[in-house]
Parts: sequence; C-alpha cells; structure tokens
Amino acid sequence: MSDRTFTVVFQPSGRRGVARPGQTVLDVARDLGVYIESICGGHQTCGKCRVQVSDGRFDKYGIQSTPAHLSPPDESERACAARCGLVSNERLACSARILGDVVIVVPEESRIKRQVIRKEVGARELRVRPVMRPYYVEVPAPALEESRGEWERVQEQLAEHFGLQDVSADAPVMRALQAALKEGRRGITLIVREGREAVHVYPGYREDLYGLAVDVGTTTIAGHLAHLRTGEVLTTVSMMNPQVTFGEDIMSRVSYAMRHPDGRERMHRAIVEALNQLVREAAEDAAISPNDIVDVVLVGNTVMHHLFLGLDPTPLGGAPFTLAVQDTVRMKARDFGLEVAPGAEVHVLPCIAGHVGADNVAVLLAEAPHEVEGEIHLVIDVGTNGEILLGNHARVLAASSPTGPAFEGAQIRHGMRAAAGAIERVRIDPETLDVRFRVIGEERWNTEWPADALDAFDVAARARRNQGRATVVKARGICGSGIIEAIAELWRVGAIDDSGRFVPGLEKETDRFRSDAAKGEFVLAWSHETATGEAITVHSDDIRAVQLAKAALYAGAKLLMNRLGIARVDRVKLAGGFGTYIDPVHALMLGMIPDASPERVHAVGNSAGDGALMALLDRELREEARRLARWVTYVGTALEEAFQEEFVAAISIPHARDPFPHVEALVANAEPWRSERRARVQPRKRRRRAR
Amino acid sequence: MSDRTFTVVFQPSGRRGVARPGQTVLDVARDLGVYIESICGGHQTCGKCRVQVSDGRFDKYGIQSTPAHLSPPDESERACAARCGLVSNERLACSARILGDVVIVVPEESRIKRQVIRKEVGARELRVRPVMRPYYVEVPAPALEESRGEWERVQEQLAEHFGLQDVSADAPVMRALQAALKEGRRGITLIVREGREAVHVYPGYREDLYGLAVDVGTTTIAGHLAHLRTGEVLTTVSMMNPQVTFGEDIMSRVSYAMRHPDGRERMHRAIVEALNQLVREAAEDAAISPNDIVDVVLVGNTVMHHLFLGLDPTPLGGAPFTLAVQDTVRMKARDFGLEVAPGAEVHVLPCIAGHVGADNVAVLLAEAPHEVEGEIHLVIDVGTNGEILLGNHARVLAASSPTGPAFEGAQIRHGMRAAAGAIERVRIDPETLDVRFRVIGEERWNTEWPADALDAFDVAARARRNQGRATVVKARGICGSGIIEAIAELWRVGAIDDSGRFVPGLEKETDRFRSDAAKGEFVLAWSHETATGEAITVHSDDIRAVQLAKAALYAGAKLLMNRLGIARVDRVKLAGGFGTYIDPVHALMLGMIPDASPERVHAVGNSAGDGALMALLDRELREEARRLARWVTYVGTALEEAFQEEFVAAISIPHARDPFPHVEALVANAEPWRSERRARVQPRKRRRRAR
Repeated sequence: MSDRTFTVVFQPSGRRGVARPGQTVLDVARDLGVYIESICGGHQTCGKCRVQVSDGRFDKYGIQSTPAHLSPPDESERACAARCGLVSNERLACSARILGDVVIVVPEESRIKRQVIRKEVGARELRVRPVMRPYYVEVPAPALEESRGEWERVQEQLAEHFGLQDVSADAPVMRALQAALKEGRRGITLIVREGREAVHVYPGYREDLYGLAVDVGTTTIAGHLAHLRTGEVLTTVSMMNPQVTFGEDIMSRVSYAMRHPDGRERMHRAIVEALNQLVREAAEDAAISPNDIVDVVLVGNTVMHHLFLGLDPTPLGGAPFTLAVQDTVRMKARDFGLEVAPGAEVHVLPCIAGHVGADNVAVLLAEAPHEVEGEIHLVIDVGTNGEILLGNHARVLAASSPTGPAFEGAQIRHGMRAAAGAIERVRIDPETLDVRFRVIGEERWNTEWPADALDAFDVAARARRNQGRATVVKARGICGSGIIEAIAELWRVGAIDDSGRFVPGLEKETDRFRSDAAKGEFVLAWSHETATGEAITVHSDDIRAVQLAKAALYAGAKLLMNRLGIARVDRVKLAGGFGTYIDPVHALMLGMIPDASPERVHAVGNSAGDGALMALLDRELREEARRLARWVTYVGTALEEAFQEEFVAAISIPHARDPFPHVEALVANAEPWRSERRARVQPRKRRRRAR
Repeated sequence: MSDRTFTVVFQPSGRRGVARPGQTVLDVARDLGVYIESICGGHQTCGKCRVQVSDGRFDKYGIQSTPAHLSPPDESERACAARCGLVSNERLACSARILGDVVIVVPEESRIKRQVIRKEVGARELRVRPVMRPYYVEVPAPALEESRGEWERVQEQLAEHFGLQDVSADAPVMRALQAALKEGRRGITLIVREGREAVHVYPGYREDLYGLAVDVGTTTIAGHLAHLRTGEVLTTVSMMNPQVTFGEDIMSRVSYAMRHPDGRERMHRAIVEALNQLVREAAEDAAISPNDIVDVVLVGNTVMHHLFLGLDPTPLGGAPFTLAVQDTVRMKARDFGLEVAPGAEVHVLPCIAGHVGADNVAVLLAEAPHEVEGEIHLVIDVGTNGEILLGNHARVLAASSPTGPAFEGAQIRHGMRAAAGAIERVRIDPETLDVRFRVIGEERWNTEWPADALDAFDVAARARRNQGRATVVKARGICGSGIIEAIAELWRVGAIDDSGRFVPGLEKETDRFRSDAAKGEFVLAWSHETATGEAITVHSDDIRAVQLAKAALYAGAKLLMNRLGIARVDRVKLAGGFGTYIDPVHALMLGMIPDASPERVHAVGNSAGDGALMALLDRELREEARRLARWVTYVGTALEEAFQEEFVAAISIPHARDPFPHVEALVANAEPWRSERRARVQPRKRRRRAR
C-alpha cells in the first residue's frame, strides 16, 4: 500500500502529478508548481489555502474524484473552517490528505498570484503579486544542548513550511524577534521581502500588511494606502507639496537650490516631513498604525525625484539636463527618514530622462500605450509639469512640458486644489450668461441649493445647518477641472474671444462681468454662494495663465506627433491628480489636446498615482518599469525651437493654426447665439473660424 | 598580421594563454584569471599593476621573451612610473601591450590576493583579501540626448574597466556622487563591497581605505585599525568597557538587564558610545578621518555580542541559555549608530553557543587548533569571561568559564588595566623577599631607576623631569600579568602557602608584609616608587580573587580534557587582552593551566582581537568562521556538577589534587630556601607536596 500513488489534478491550471497516500494537498500543489496561498504554513490558522474537490465521479480527466478521496477534516481543520467561514465543499489544502485520485479546484482567492481588476486603474488587468508577504511560523521552545539561536530556529521553520532558504533578518527584525516570540507564545508572523529578507515581525498570527503608493507632484502629493495581500485600496489622501514655498514650478525649485547652499537640504526635509504627514493621515484614515506600512512606492517628476531622494537637482536646470540616477532606486525607509515600519522598503520607480521622470513611467504602467496594437494613443498627465506619452506597441515617445501650476489651482486668483468647496463643474447659459456650478463635496448644482442655505453669514441659518436642515457645501474657490470648464464655457458662449480676451461690451450684457481697465473678471459664484462671503470670479489673468498652460501641453503633444509623423491620434487619455476628472469636451474646446472625437477622449484620473499603486501591488511591474524606462524614446522639449513655435500658436482658443473640426461641430449647435454675440460685439473674429 | 596571436605566460602561477597583438598585459591577465591589482583600471594613475618581463631569451617555457616584446612605455606610463617609484625593469600591466611572446612576472605586491605574514597573529598565514576594494573611474562628461544618469555612467565604467556588473549604490553614495564627480573633475574612487555594492565615494584618485577590528570584552575593549589594501595595522587602541558601571562580570550585566526595563538599552547605548570613542581615538592616532573607516569586524562573548547588537541578553542568564542569533550578523554602520563611513558594514562574527561567543570564534581563527594534525592544543583566552578551546583537526571542544575580572585588574585593590604605569613584571628574591618590578612604558626594572627620579613629589624633581633629566614612568597599579607574577612569586618564595594564605610569622622576615588581623598585604612598590605616592600592595583578598579566577580557567580546561578523555595536552596557548604577554612559567606555577613543559606553553597575546583583525582583512576567513562556529563542539560548564568539583580542587596553588611535575621541577631549584622557610614557619604544609 505504501508504494501506491494517486493521481492529482489541479484546476483550473490542469496541472497533474502523482501523490503518495497521506500527502497533504498543499505539499502536492507545491511540488507541481501550483501556488496556493498559505500564511500559516499548515498550522490550520489562516484558512487561506481553501480548495474544493471536484465531485464528478469521472470527470474530463478520467479521474474518479470524491470528497472521500481526501482524509476527513480533523478537529483543528473544523475549528479553522468555522472561524474562517469555509463552506461545506471547501477544505484546507494544508490539512486534507490524499487518499485516492482527485481533481482539486483552486479558487481565485486561494491563488498566490491573484488577479484583481480595479476600476480606478482603467481596463488594465492588475495582479496582486506583492514584494512583501506574511509568513506565520511556530518556533518550538529551545532545548538545552541546542546551540542554534532563535533566528536560526525561525529560518528552519521558514524552510520547512514555506521552502524559503537562507532568509536574512533586517536589523529591526533581529532586535524585535525575542520579544515577539515571547509575546506570541512562540508564534510569530514575519513579513518577508521577495522570500529573502524578513523586514518586519509581529507576535502571533497576522494577515494584514499595508503599502503606500505616492505620486509626489510639484504642487500636490497624493497617496494610495493599500492592503498588500488583498490589493484593496483603503484610502486615498492628498495634500499640498510644502515645497511650493520655495517656488511654484520645478524650475523655480531648481533655482532655489542653486541660490541657497542649504536649499536642496531644506526642500528634501520639507518633502520627507510632508510624506510623514501623509503617512499619518492615511494611517489614521484607515485605522492602522504607520508601523504596519511595510512597502512604499514613490514616483515624481525628475526634480521631485531628486529632491525626495536628497540628490542635487541643479544639473536638471540646464543642458545637458543630467540625472543623478535614472534606474530604480531602492532604500530602507529608515535611511530616508520615513516613519513607517523601519524595515520597510522605499522603491522609487526609474526616470526616463532629464525631464521625464518616474511619474511618467507610472503613467506608462497605468495606461500601457505600449500594449496597444495599431491605434496611436496620446496620454497627457496634466500637472504643474505635464507628462506626455505618444505611440503604441511599436514605439512610445515621451516628453514633459512646463505647464505651470494653473491646472492645480495655483496662479489663479480664486484657485484652490481639488478639495471640498472647490468649483469643479461650470455651465454658462449662452443666452443669459447665467452660471451653474457644482462644488466638490456637494451633490447638487448651485441652482438646486435650498434657498435658506444661502445666507451663510446669518447666525440663524448656521444654527439651522447644525440641526441638519438645509445645509450645502458652499464654494471656496476653483480647482483645475473647474477653471478648464469655466474658460471653455466663457469661450463657447462668446464671452471671450479666441485670443482669450473678454469681448468688448460684455458688461452691457451681464452684471457678472466687471471691467477693470484693459482687464476684467467674470463672476462664477456670487458672494452669498461662497463660504467666504466674497464672490468667486475668473479674471483676465487667470484666463491667460490657463492659455499658457494648455499651450504648453498642446505644444508638447504636437512635438511628439510631428516626431512620429502623424497629424491626428486615435485616442487621447487625460490624466491628472484632480479631485474629479477633466471633462473631455471642455478640454477639447479649450484646445488643451489635439482635435479628436469627444468619444475618443478619456479622463483617466490620477494615472501616475495609479501606476505607483500598480507597482506597489505587483512586483513584476517593477521590472517592467525598468524595461520601459529604457525602451521609451525621450524627446526633449526644452531646447527645441519647434516647441516654442508650437507653443505660441497654441495660445489661442482652441488654436491659431491647427484645425479643430470636432470642436467646430460641438460649437455648431450653439452657433446661432454664439455667432450673434460675436457678430454684435466682435464680428472680425469670425474670419479665422470660417477657414 | 591582425589574426596572429602571441603566447603569454604569467609567473609564478604558470598560467599561459594567447593574446592578440596590442592587447594590454592587464587584459590578458584578466582573461586568464591572473589577478593583478589595479585601482585605476588602466588610467596610469595608481601604479599598482607593476609587472616585470622575464628577460631570458628562451626560458623554461620555451618562450623567447624580451622587453621589446611589449610596447614601449608612453608618456603617461613614464609619468606614472616616476611618480610611483617603478624601477627600470618594471612596467605597468595596464599600459604595456603585447607585441610578441612574453613571460610576465607578477610580483607579490601586485597580486590581488596578497599574502602577509604578521608576527602578531602567530605563525598562521594571513592573506589580505578584503571585502572592500577601491576602484578609480573617470566618467565622461554627460552629453545632450544622453538619458542615462550619472550612476548608470559610473556603472558602465566599473563594467568596462573592472568587469564589475550591476554594482548598486548605497544611499550615502548616491547622495554624494554628484558632488564627488564635480570635485574630482569626473574622476572618483568608489569603495565597493564584494564587487557588488558601492559603499563610499571619494572625489579623485584614492588608494587608502581602512577597517577596524574590535574585541568587545567584558572589562576591556580593544581595537586594531588596519589599512585594508596593504594589511598594515596602523594603531591598536584599548579602553575600559563603560558597561562595568552596570556590573563587573557578564552575569551581573544580564542581571542588570533583568532588573531594569531600560537596562538593555542603556548598556547598548553605552557600548555604542564607547565604540565611537574608540573609533575617534584610533582615527586620531593614525591621522585619518573616522569617515575613512569602511569596514568593521566586531567580536565579543555572547552577552557583549547581544548588548552591542541591541539584543536581549536575559535568555543567556538561565537555562537553556538561548542565543537570539548564532550566525554572522551583518548590518550597516549607520543602523548601528557607529560613526564611521555611513555605508560601512559592521560584520559580527558568529557565536558557538549560549555561553561561547564570537570572541571564541575569533580565537579559533587566530590560533587555528583545527588545523593541527596529531597534537592536542589547549587555547585559553584569559579575560573576565575565559574562553577555552581544546582539540585538533579531528575535533575541537569549546567552553567558556566565568573567570571574573581579576586578570583584567578589576576586583584587585591596586589593580588597573594594562596601560602606562601598570606593574607587569614582578620578581621576588627568595632570601631577602625584596621585590623587583617593571612597569608598562618604562624599559628599566625599578632597581635600575636613577636615584634622583624617585622623589616624585618634589617640585624640583618634576621640573628636572620636564627638562628631560632623570625621568621614569612610576608605578600606578598592577595589571593582569603583574598580579599573576606577583602571586606566583609570593608562592615560589614561600611567602604564601598552597591555600593562598600568607604564612604565619612573615612580618618577622620582611617589613614589606603588613599584617591586618587574619588578612595581610605585601608591598610590591614603596610609596616613593609610585606615581600616586602610596605604596602598591598585594592583599589577601587579591590573592583570593586570583585563585578563584585561575580555578575557573583550570576547571574549564579540565572539563574539556575529561570530555576528550586525555590527562595532558601537547601545547598550551595563553591568550588575553593584556598589555604584555602572560609569562608561561608563572601561569604554570599558579596552576592557571594544566601542567606542561614551560617550552610548550605559549603566550599569544590578544587572540580574539587578532582573529577579528584576520576576519577584517580576509573575507574568506569570514566564511571559515561560519563553518567553524557550527563545527566546534560546545561543552556547557554552567550546569555541570563536575565543573564545580574541578573548580574547588583548583583553588589551591598549583592544585589540591592534580600532579604538577613540571612545576615541582621548576620549584626544585629554589627548594632549599623554600623548604627552609616553610619548615620554619609552616612545616605541616610539606605533607601535600611530598605526595
């Protein structure tokens, strides 16, 4: 009987092999390269290795397979099954022993390489294959005449139950080991990096471990806190980059580092402190300890990259724009001053070139233009520094464009970042020039607000709010998507002309327009609609700032299109760390992006942050990032004369030269009133549009 | 002509192969696996790759070899040859190109694996094969359209000139790289660990790099500062272990950690601070910067090992005496708080068992009993914790023995560590009981001191001293070797009996003896011979402390001999962190070690420190240490009843039970006066000796 063997087939992989009678399903699976999740390594503690027995007597593999072909559950398995909520046909692979030929079904959630499709990261499949994994071990009490140390005894358990050889202990683990063994009554959970280094230790059994993916933008820092085993995003937090006090855009930061001997160090410290604040906020939000964060992925443009790594950004400020390091940088969180688990790793994605950073690589990971066959995709990450990708599987070009912070609400009189109270949606009535808007944190458009909520500074009204009646989140400012819509709408209704100037005589048509010498401003929200009690307006200077910003993005995209020899793109993805998505129609009208059918323009949210998250959850994407960073073709914009030329032409709305047929079509519906106002106040303007 | 090849033979290895015309000697050597030193990688900067052309026209290899078969030195080589002191028949391997068949002689100093025989570490060969090596690279200025970073460009140079692939940069190197490239005008020297990780960077060319080997003893910390390329020891420094304030021996330190919640952390900080002080002293002494120390090897007994690593030593205080970690521990100096180069590695040798530590492994490396064929060697490392090894190539037993700090000058009334002014040699005249002594820092015995140097507290005398006349280093106390000699001599001349008590009536024979109820003290140095102006004496309590200490060592050795089933050993090595060596004759007389012929007892100095130094200089010994730590057979003494029994019997001088024929013979010469005194004052004592 002892030399009998049984046939075991695993579904859905179809792997088959032989088992000795009495072998556990987990052992057989490991021998056959079927990766079944197990944190406790067979101690009937974690319940992660649940499998089902295919119950067809003879199935397609010709195997007679019944639950009786496995050993019945013992008391320990029954207890774990009850605790972990196993259903009737499920068994623990670590406990069930082979007693006959069987077909074992491994459900998705028991597979080590789980597949999770996340809405937030678009259509791209995301696998959860984290760098850090938990391993629960029970270490027998030491005996006299045993000369090995506790760590060697832990290593033995890791080898025996998980097949991990020569795992090393990071210094913080070595120091915490004895106390953890004591507190956990000889049972501990180790967090092990790539099966090689224990970076964290918990007393007892533990299955929760967390990671943070952060996109350090010039103006905004945004982070996702994720569960590293399930892939679940627990919270997403964002904050201003405190470096804005040293300069609003990247070149002014570089200049600050050049002019002040301690500038680089001050900006480095500022960003590390900010990251620590972000860590605390995210951890508090998710009700975990910062010490439970064991893996961190950081991305950012090249100047942010250098500043958070403590490198000198000044070579990035002038030709030949040399990076200190292009490749992936890995360091210990403690070497970085980051207050997460001290053994945690900080993994910084690679850069592409002097002006094309790790944030662009993250956008590549998230939007994957290199996986597109045939179609040409244009991906624009809108930020203070615009990141632009163009191409498909054959070739992807990358550039960055000095957009300025207008789209992040900076350099805008009433600008603010995308937070509660920011105007994010704007509609202007073409006839009355009346404005509807919606703010972040408030479902209703302002026109639907209850009337009694409007007297904000009325104490009685505030008291009513506190009683739960008639409350609204009033407007506090305008965020990026709001300013885009506001200006596009002003242009659509003919309140501003193609050069971005308010049309003469506008004050006669609406009291929302206030003239101010050669300049002027247009009221979006009246004082009673704002939390501050002051009207929120769009000023001539704001329009100019947005024109320059959108021209920079457009010129960058155009430069890449020219390099690729194409006049139009098949699909446009608009990414950006906005609170909400940019409206493709308004982006098109403004001429932020090359003309395209609005259905082929997609707002994809914070792609850089999503790419960082993907690299956090899937270790194989970290290798892909390295390959992509070298594979992508970098196109410099800074010294290109063509860029300047494209930039100047793109300042007009939508463009001084390039045709925008889809925008023409969009505006055509509104053409009667539009052309009427234009004809009345500024007939000469029609000339260009008629071309 | 271009597909012609030439034959090249390297001496003394005899390796031969073919070379293409014009290949450098260094390239050919690398291809053939002949390791020629080169720091600058062929930039004619370091001059380390000097070789000679064998000038026999036809030598034993049948090769016609003349200097003309190499390209003549170019200007760059001639400049380097002049600067580096090359002699006429020497060439730089990186510059000389093959133009015909040649036999190349690689001198010892040009070989990467140099062999250095160091007197201090006994007869064992020591090779200099350090973990850290310097590499000089010149990195071309970056060009526009070059997207790689500076680090990638450094990696390229390391690969091209030294064949090092994928070298990673430690965080401090990454941060210092840009400034070093600038300051060194694109030439930098990287210190690379095992060809894999750059841990330090210098601007320009640099060939000096240093390492520190430290033995952290319970009472004394001693360190060697060595040049990692040449193997030269620049300085040896020592200091008191500041942990003595927490307890004089290891068990009282463990007890302190048990009784105080912050005890472990306080002792850890104390030792790290002490190590930093040692680093500063050693660096100052050798006129280098602490920042130039790039490698550190630490050894110590198991309690010291745990305390300096920040581990909990309390499990070592009771059965089953479990180590936190037995194996080698490697960490970054900065994780340790050690103020050397931040990228430096701290390498802690492995322990053997709960009571047999890394110091014992270091003694093994230095004394290598496992390499002895036939003879049985006994190695005793005398310290507050005595480390004992016994065996030969077939088997080595290891034990540790709780000696107490007497041999390090603690628990001795006038005890001090081995520093200037410590009495280290003592001779007592058997007839007059007069004393001669010598102190550390003073060549002459006290009987040869100039008379006018003796009035130490005479201001005029001090002034004369300052003028360079008649100065001596007066006695300040007694160190370990001094107390051993003093007590052995007191016993030899019959002033104390075998039980260690002063013989009755001694005060009638000499005014050096001062009776004090049941106790007494014997003056070694009169007040005018000491720096303090107070007499230095040996007290009954001191004798008792030394008896207990020597009994512990003897009992430990005896236990191992019994385990091996032998009654005598072939050779005894007495190691210890004393200022000078223990005198074998006095150690024998005292019964510190089993009886042996004095010629077969060797004082070998600070073996643990030497072993640490060897591991610092030769990376292969680090692997050997791991193998040995597992191979050695550990013998516990703490719970052995036999140990207690042996200990009690060994308190007598030389021993209550075991025969000491060699000591009998030594004493026989002095027997007439000895037996006379004994007969006169204590005749009954002769009984035991007559057995």
